Amino acid sequence: MDDTLIDVPRGLTNVVAAETALGDVRGHEGFYHYRQYSAVELASERTFEEAWYLLVFGDLPTRPQLDAFKRRVADARTIPDEVAAMLPAIARVTGGTDALAGLRLALGAVAAVDGIRPLYDTAADARIDDAIRVAAVTPALLAALHRLAAGEQPILSRPDLGHVANYLYLLSGTAPDARTEHAVSAYMTAAIDHGFNASTFTARVIASTGADLGSAVVGALGALAGPLHGGAPSRALDTLDAIGSPDRIDAWVTDAVLSGGRIMGFGHPVYRTEDPRSRMLRTIAEGFGGSRVEFATAVEKRVLALLSELKPGRELHTNVEFYAAVVMELCGIPRSMFTPTFAAARVVGWTAHILEQAADGKIIRPSSRYVGEPAPAPLPPAV
Amino acid sequence: MDDTLIDVPRGLTNVVAAETALGDVRGHEGFYHYRQYSAVELASERTFEEAWYLLVFGDLPTRPQLDAFKRRVADARTIPDEVAAMLPAIARVTGGTDALAGLRLALGAVAAVDGIRPLYDTAADARIDDAIRVAAVTPALLAALHRLAAGEQPILSRPDLGHVANYLYLLSGTAPDARTEHAVSAYMTAAIDHGFNASTFTARVIASTGADLGSAVVGALGALAGPLHGGAPSRALDTLDAIGSPDRIDAWVTDAVLSGGRIMGFGHPVYRTEDPRSRMLRTIAEGFGGSRVEFATAVEKRVLALLSELKPGRELHTNVEFYAAVVMELCGIPRSMFTPTFAAARVVGWTAHILEQAADGKIIRPSSRYVGEPAPAPLPPAV
Repeated sequence: MDDTLIDVPRGLTNVVAAETALGDVRGHEGFYHYRQYSAVELASERTFEEAWYLLVFGDLPTRPQLDAFKRRVADARTIPDEVAAMLPAIARVTGGTDALAGLRLALGAVAAVDGIRPLYDTAADARIDDAIRVAAVTPALLAALHRLAAGEQPILSRPDLGHVANYLYLLSGTAPDARTEHAVSAYMTAAIDHGFNASTFTARVIASTGADLGSAVVGALGALAGPLHGGAPSRALDTLDAIGSPDRIDAWVTDAVLSGGRIMGFGHPVYRTEDPRSRMLRTIAEGFGGSRVEFATAVEKRVLALLSELKPGRELHTNVEFYAAVVMELCGIPRSMFTPTFAAARVVGWTAHILEQAADGKIIRPSSRYVGEPAPAPLPPAV
Repeated sequence: MDDTLIDVPRGLTNVVAAETALGDVRGHEGFYHYRQYSAVELASERTFEEAWYLLVFGDLPTRPQLDAFKRRVADARTIPDEVAAMLPAIARVTGGTDALAGLRLALGAVAAVDGIRPLYDTAADARIDDAIRVAAVTPALLAALHRLAAGEQPILSRPDLGHVANYLYLLSGTAPDARTEHAVSAYMTAAIDHGFNASTFTARVIASTGADLGSAVVGALGALAGPLHGGAPSRALDTLDAIGSPDRIDAWVTDAVLSGGRIMGFGHPVYRTEDPRSRMLRTIAEGFGGSRVEFATAVEKRVLALLSELKPGRELHTNVEFYAAVVMELCGIPRSMFTPTFAAARVVGWTAHILEQAADGKIIRPSSRYVGEPAPAPLPPAV
């Protein structure tokens, strides 16, 4: 069917692969939104559960709706016994990689034990149940795998804690103070969705076949593992570590820029203005204060000044990973859990996109262009 | 960046998402090829390993290359001890679904134990190792999970057997006779690749982020689980079962067509001619002979006659699933393993596409069009 092929930019850049009412990124305006609301305003001023509810149900919840949703999310956190029994083995085999490799196995096991059915065999209400289940259990699985990898026993969720506070409790064994809870909640809420990144697109492609919601999320987690994806804030701390102390900033940055290396934490494929998430997270970090924050802001200032001097016109700004890393470090999240924490937030966005794609019902199946040897050629003699 | 969005048909139909030298489907010509060779000729006349080698390395192997490749594949079949120890638990939690849900977990565990690295952190030769490893171990994992779900112990691969014969041996405990081996080899070789289906596309999207090869294959397996994907030949046997006996063919088919139901085993989104795979598999089935084959060919004949009478101009042909199911049944493959057998073949195609995508190096990241409420709207008062 070569005659009907449609050529588009490589990598499908700017190609409309789906219509969505979930949100959008306006990179030139330095702005992104969940449904009609500024994502950064939601992140700063509302709970994680409110943004989650908004994306799944289309409106912000009333107080009774929010209370009921919090109970529903708390109920959906429970790890099934059969899966809990497998977690030590999963932590053992995936211990050499990261918690995300383990999460893929654990989530697949939860989907199997729960009997999560193909999307196209499932009524819309039951799909929402599955979506909440998968997103709610994800932080619990991540925290359990993290504790097991560290030689500790997983602990049980506390139904009285909100989604973010419970995650921090499961990681550390201690419920967070209000400032820490708000800081991580703001980061995680801002990380729920961000346009059509490769993992979200993967989730929608898998969902478009009618596969089960667990498969679509596991596929998205696979895409997230790719170094081109983003969402790996720990790399930004590597920059701070490499610089080491305030007096070395200029020499290190000049050297990095002149040698052509990328400075992790700076530059984003979408934003040509300051990333609105960075601004929010910088303010949060400054609220904590201390020498680490002072060092980070000094590094940012000098990197931006030197980049604009050495690469004029490039408009390279601080990306979300830089202050996300600083904030997570301030909040006591271990560095190995930075990307898993991002995933624990983004899974809410993936599941909302999966629900939207399932309602669409059309398979996403593009074509390829054959560029190999002219075919058909006769088979050469058998060997 | 709304101003630059590119509109294309919904579901990306006919949109060129990648260039490939691996093969193509020419639906209007009733023809498909692996590199420059007819896939059906390869399936009928060559071993599975030769087609596999062709896709991975670009040429058919010489005799020494083929011998070395067979040894390499045989070595790569071994299930690591840590994963073997997990298989009973995996079979237990996924027993209610199918072997593919278990395969996703088992393959993820193999990738973790083997330390399979992100594609963009891996040299081209090591990627090929990983690709052969993942594709070679897949049938062994499927057979082990199948035996465990049936309450039997997995058995060890036999290095003296070819890839397809060994798979049949692992399933049943008996090495196949030459006719059975050839029949299943022809089916599996013909199932390695078939253009840009949704699972192959999923594998390439995940690979394009630079994620590890295991993640990309696990994602593709997720897409394959979708009812819109195809590759589920057991549904064709459901048609034969529902008809039951030759005297009921006309009444059943007329009823099914008039009631608007789809008859599983007939019709394909790509081919408007006879599916070349069906023709090959029919010939193979006829070589076995017997009452089951006579029944199947009688059903096919009447379905096609009645469809052309009742739905003139629709050109509905027998699809690959119909005779694939008949052949697999003749070869003693249990019905629950039809789709897993398809996956055991298709994984070779996925891994070849992943290698090609990794060499490309550009992320596949399309856009979405926002169609929700006008944004930004001010946040309503907090609840």
